[in-house]
Amino acid sequence: MTQADAPDITTKVVGILGGTGPQGRGLARQFARAGVTVLLGSRSAERAEETAQNLREATRGKVTGHDNAAVASSADIVVVAVPWDGHAELLAGLQEQLAGKIVIDCVNPLGFDSHGAFALPVEEGSAAMQARTLLPESIVTAAFHHLSAVRLEDDEVTSFDEDVLVLGDDREATDLVQALAATLPGVRGVYAGRLRNAHQVEAFTANLISINRRYKAHAGITVTGI
Amino acid sequence: MTQADAPDITTKVVGILGGTGPQGRGLARQFARAGVTVLLGSRSAERAEETAQNLREATRGKVTGHDNAAVASSADIVVVAVPWDGHAELLAGLQEQLAGKIVIDCVNPLGFDSHGAFALPVEEGSAAMQARTLLPESIVTAAFHHLSAVRLEDDEVTSFDEDVLVLGDDREATDLVQALAATLPGVRGVYAGRLRNAHQVEAFTANLISINRRYKAHAGITVTGI
Repeated sequence: MTQADAPDITTKVVGILGGTGPQGRGLARQFARAGVTVLLGSRSAERAEETAQNLREATRGKVTGHDNAAVASSADIVVVAVPWDGHAELLAGLQEQLAGKIVIDCVNPLGFDSHGAFALPVEEGSAAMQARTLLPESIVTAAFHHLSAVRLEDDEVTSFDEDVLVLGDDREATDLVQALAATLPGVRGVYAGRLRNAHQVEAFTANLISINRRYKAHAGITVTGI
Repeated sequence: MTQADAPDITTKVVGILGGTGPQGRGLARQFARAGVTVLLGSRSAERAEETAQNLREATRGKVTGHDNAAVASSADIVVVAVPWDGHAELLAGLQEQLAGKIVIDCVNPLGFDSHGAFALPVEEGSAAMQARTLLPESIVTAAFHHLSAVRLEDDEVTSFDEDVLVLGDDREATDLVQALAATLPGVRGVYAGRLRNAHQVEAFTANLISINRRYKAHAGITVTGI
């Protein structure tokens, strides 16, 4: 996909479920900075609007806050950025609202113990595959697993210089998600396979956490050779 | 780990089980080019020595061919580069020879169908964890999963410009494997977590295969921010 045929993402409304958590808030901030219209969702509409107001002030972008169901109903593309614990329950309740829409799952099912992070087993194979099972009428993709929430919220970061891996079985959808990723400065959206291969991308976040500990860093990855 | 305290890998003898396959042969070629002494192993000592002779001529390095058991007995560090199909059987038969040694598993348990590559389920969690189960007296690490065999065998590649992820629970061993990885031009050996997090690194090779198809490339990865 060249820049020329990249879909125009600024005409789309992007919703973020779990938008008051660090990852959701960070993505909302970056999308808003890039001129994308963002609907920020949370269990509490009030808390969502509070965060949205902060983001409007910080970015001068188009962000408003609502409850998760309202966001799922109104947005064209919906990012799922909730904690793994609440993932299944939330999506099961939004099946109707999300029908026909592009869903971007960016949830990492991880556990933590004294040795650090590790991948949790997921019956459906991955968070993304669980989303596909729970949302049979949505077009489920997976992306944005590896961006550090700390960096997403740091306005001093003017270029991320890393790639966002995008997975999914629908070419039009993955092209759009790649274009959304590329609205972040210094980010390429890279197609990285079908949804069945999302597990290892989610689980790799455990390795990045190990790398961060060892090297005192906010690590990410880039794909070489492309 | 700075260059100054990196272990001196050139004093070690590196064995490669499955050294006549593309991955093993390619790694042997690169190690030999870097001045590392390589014992190339195969089921047939004769076939191993044939490959070793080609590599000696191509690299002017120190490579000799032997059967896998002889390599396991004589080498200081042993790379496991056999196909996944023969992984368990081979290692179960070399438990004694590999006792006390550093083993580097670089096997990717993958399946293929009309949609491309996918990760196979492994009872022990990963090829590396299976190696640890079968070799309780060895120090098992995992690395070299993502380097393209085509590039490893291509003498026109003068710099790989990618990272090798190194996993393991023994710091001295992972330091040594990182140093071995860094003998390849343009490669960093990056510590990427404990052995229990090897599965996703192995499985990610399926994603690289998808990336290679989409972008007509020999893709690898680098870790950003370190």
